[in-house]
This record gives sequence, C-alpha cells and structure tokens, in this order.
Amino acid sequence: MRDDAEQLAALAARYGGDEAPSFGPWNDVIAGLLAHKSVRAYLPDALPSGALERIVAAAQSAATSSNLQTWSVLAVEDADRKRRLADFAGGQKHIEQCPLFLVWLADLSRLREVGRIKQSPTDALDYLETFLVAVIDAALAAQNAVVALESMGLGSVYIGALRNKPQAVAEELGLPPDVLAVFGLCVGYPDLEEASGVKPRLPQAAILHRERYRSTVTPGLLDDYDRALMAFQQEQAVPAVGWTSAATARVRGPASLNGRDALRQALTALGFGLR
Amino acid sequence: MRDDAEQLAALAARYGGDEAPSFGPWNDVIAGLLAHKSVRAYLPDALPSGALERIVAAAQSAATSSNLQTWSVLAVEDADRKRRLADFAGGQKHIEQCPLFLVWLADLSRLREVGRIKQSPTDALDYLETFLVAVIDAALAAQNAVVALESMGLGSVYIGALRNKPQAVAEELGLPPDVLAVFGLCVGYPDLEEASGVKPRLPQAAILHRERYRSTVTPGLLDDYDRALMAFQQEQAVPAVGWTSAATARVRGPASLNGRDALRQALTALGFGLR
Repeated sequence: MRDDAEQLAALAARYGGDEAPSFGPWNDVIAGLLAHKSVRAYLPDALPSGALERIVAAAQSAATSSNLQTWSVLAVEDADRKRRLADFAGGQKHIEQCPLFLVWLADLSRLREVGRIKQSPTDALDYLETFLVAVIDAALAAQNAVVALESMGLGSVYIGALRNKPQAVAEELGLPPDVLAVFGLCVGYPDLEEASGVKPRLPQAAILHRERYRSTVTPGLLDDYDRALMAFQQEQAVPAVGWTSAATARVRGPASLNGRDALRQALTALGFGLR
Repeated sequence: MRDDAEQLAALAARYGGDEAPSFGPWNDVIAGLLAHKSVRAYLPDALPSGALERIVAAAQSAATSSNLQTWSVLAVEDADRKRRLADFAGGQKHIEQCPLFLVWLADLSRLREVGRIKQSPTDALDYLETFLVAVIDAALAAQNAVVALESMGLGSVYIGALRNKPQAVAEELGLPPDVLAVFGLCVGYPDLEEASGVKPRLPQAAILHRERYRSTVTPGLLDDYDRALMAFQQEQAVPAVGWTSAATARVRGPASLNGRDALRQALTALGFGLR
C-alpha cells in the first residue's frame, strides 16, 4: 500500500472533495486512470516513432465479443481532412490542432467480406444486437488506446460529434457499407499552458449499486454535485453552470441532439439493418 | 526504451508471431494491456478490502459523453443471484464461481429522474443516439475497470450473454425503465492451474487504416490468421477451429444469436425509445 496522501488527493479531485477517505489497492496504473483529463489544446509536436502502432496493439488487446473483432480504426494526419472532419463535428478546433486524429469504426463490413469469401450467409449482421457488439468492441478498444497513450505522456479527447453527420464522415473517409464512425479521438502532446483539471464525477454512491438497483437520485445529491462541479468550473475559468442545468439542456429534446436525432435513419442509409 | 525482448515477445503473443518487429514506446502500462487474457476459472478468494471502490473510481474516471454519466454498475456477490444470472447467460459456470460479478448498465433512468426533479423535458432520451451514448459510456467505464483490476492481480471476463434475456436480467436486478444490463464482468483471482494464454488477434494491417478506409480482407490474410489461431487453440488444448469458421457460424443468421435477435423488442419493453 503506497502513499496514502496521493490516494486521498486523487479521490478528492475525482469526486470534488466529497468522497469518504476509504483506502484500497493503489498503484501507478490506478493513479494514472484516476488522473485522466480530456485534452483540448495540443502542441504541434509529432508523436514518437512507433507510438501509433503501440496504441493500436493496446487497443487490439482489449476484449472483443466472441473474438469477432468487429471494429477498425482510421488514422487521419492530413491537415485538410482534419479540417473537413472538424467542420462536420461542429467546428471543434482541437480536431485540426492535434497531430493525430483517430476515427473509431464499428465495422461489420469485414465479417460481410469473410462471409462472401467463405460463401457463408451473414444475416445476423442485420440485427441491432450485432451493431451493438461492434459499437462496444470499438469502445473497449478505444479506451485501451487512451490508457496506452496517456502512459506515453500523450493526451486525448473523444469526439462524439462525428455522429452529427455520419454520412458526410463516411464519404470523407471512404467507408464501405456496414461501417459507422462511432467517435473520433484527438491525440497529441497536451499544451500545458491550457491544461484543464480533473473533472469531478457523481459520488460513487450514485453509480454503484449492490445486488439490486436502488434509485439514488435525490434533490440533495444533485445540489451537492452541482456545487462541486461549479467550484471546479470556477477554478477552470469556464462558465459555472453546474451539472443539472447542462445535463437537462442536453437531453431536452431532438433539437438538443445536434442532428443526431436522425442517427437511426443515417445508420439505415449506411447499410445497417438494426432489426 | 526498455527491454526490447519483452516488447517483441508481447507482440508475438498478441499477433501470433506474424507481426513485424517494429519498436515503439514501451512501459509497464502498455506491457500490462498487451498481456490481457480473459479469465474463466477463479479461486474462491475474496477481493482485497476497498478493491471494488477503487475499481469503480477508475471506471468513473473514463470519459463520458458531455459528462452525462449515463451508466451505472451493479455489484453481485450473492451466490443464488449469481446462479440465476448464470442460467440466464447460457449456464456459464464462471459467473457462479467468481467472487464478484459486475453488471454494467446503460442507465438513462438517472437523467429521466433529474428531469422530473428539475421539471425539464427529457424527450431526447427516447432516441437511438442517446441509447448509444449510454452503451458507449458503460463500455468505456468497464474497460477502465478491467485495466484497474488487472493492475491489482485480478482477472475478469466480459459476459455479453446477459443480453440473451435482457428482461429476465432486469427483473432479477430490479432495474427501472430506461436501463439495460449491457454486459456482465466476472472478477476474481485467476486460478492459475487453468490459466489461458494471450489470444492472437488479426494482424494490425487488417484493423488500422490511414486517411481513407481500404478493404484489407483477402483469402490469404484469412488463411494466415486461421493458422495462427489454430496453433493457439492447439496449445490451449481447445478445439482447433480457427477464426473464419467460428466467426461465420456466429453471424450466420438470427438463430445464431442465442435469443439476441429479439434485442430490439426487449429494449422497447424495457422503455427505450430508440427513435
């Protein structure tokens, strides 16, 4: 058991100071995971030689449902292409700025091709379940990539806004049918002059259930978390809106989804059956 | 740059010996990620005190779309409940055997409750996009949990078969509407007498694309990977079926989905709009 002070400080940052000081297993890996921050300002420096290949090897080492490996990753370094992708994603400047933009793909086209080569039907690819498998495979792989790149001193931020215009993204990247760009990931060395802090999350008691689900949302819990997040936002010099007002604004209705209310139709156009 | 031999051995195991010996950044975190194995045989030993809370803190430290935190995790230790969940998941004995079974939840009920308390509409929760956000949030969190628990010497295996009977699982766990048990995760100390090896994946060239998607599936690539996987399977004393025959059997049609061809209907019954 190492450095109790480090453990307490990490938990206080992650939970906004409200987490009970409970001790548990602690090591460099856990410390690294708890210190995660999204990075939205990058230095122009290129990645070290071989870094992309190591990141992808880490991603491929994540579990994949029945070893089907229903995902791919596309590495974008071309400045013009990054600019176009940034446009599709609501103009997020860090997509242009980062030296490497990874696009994580739910990829059922590979198994479609295997079926063609082996002359075997692939009708199960047309079900919502199989699409979900591909999305989950891509997410597990991407998170391993994030852990790997952070261990190299690199930073990243997920870009869900690639789903604002899935068909435009598919065309830009030459995606075949049965492939969705699930999300992007900016990768590069963090510009420490614009570094952000560790964002507090909901208290563990709100997330962790035991044996049976118990609703844990109370007005008091929401007030406490709003306060913790506002304190963090003030510290970061961003508008102190708290959590509940931002979260309710985000889920208010289809207009708050930035075009993603049409995702189902876009998936159909991209070839997914979703039966 | 550390221990080239270790790096080469790790890559050879992960890619079945066929990966070109390219060097890149290397450290204990990357070595740990590449050494991942699914564990299906557990010792009865309990987890160390505080381990579950550290695992959940690591999970909460993963990125979450717009900080919405649309996931929860449910810890099951009760033997009878584990037995019933194992039954729902096609009788996988390791669910009964592991001391801790984590159920990862795509959880839109929390935001529904926030909307109720704040008297704000939550119509965007009824869209496929928001369901996907919740599934991705749960997957990113779970993968961080896997990295954390492996750093403690614990092992795990994902259980996608919880989606065979989503409604039975929801009833067993008392899940409210708008919550799906996306997958389970067995956790415990590996029984080293039944330890498995590092499973070879598809070559990196099949997974990693640059700038634009290029189809990478060829009969030769499939033959090579089938051979690599058969060699691994023989080494592990399991039936040497290779990859393509197992993969095509899995995606043949609705009957090969073990009930999950009805997932869409089950999600509707669980309250998800999926518009």
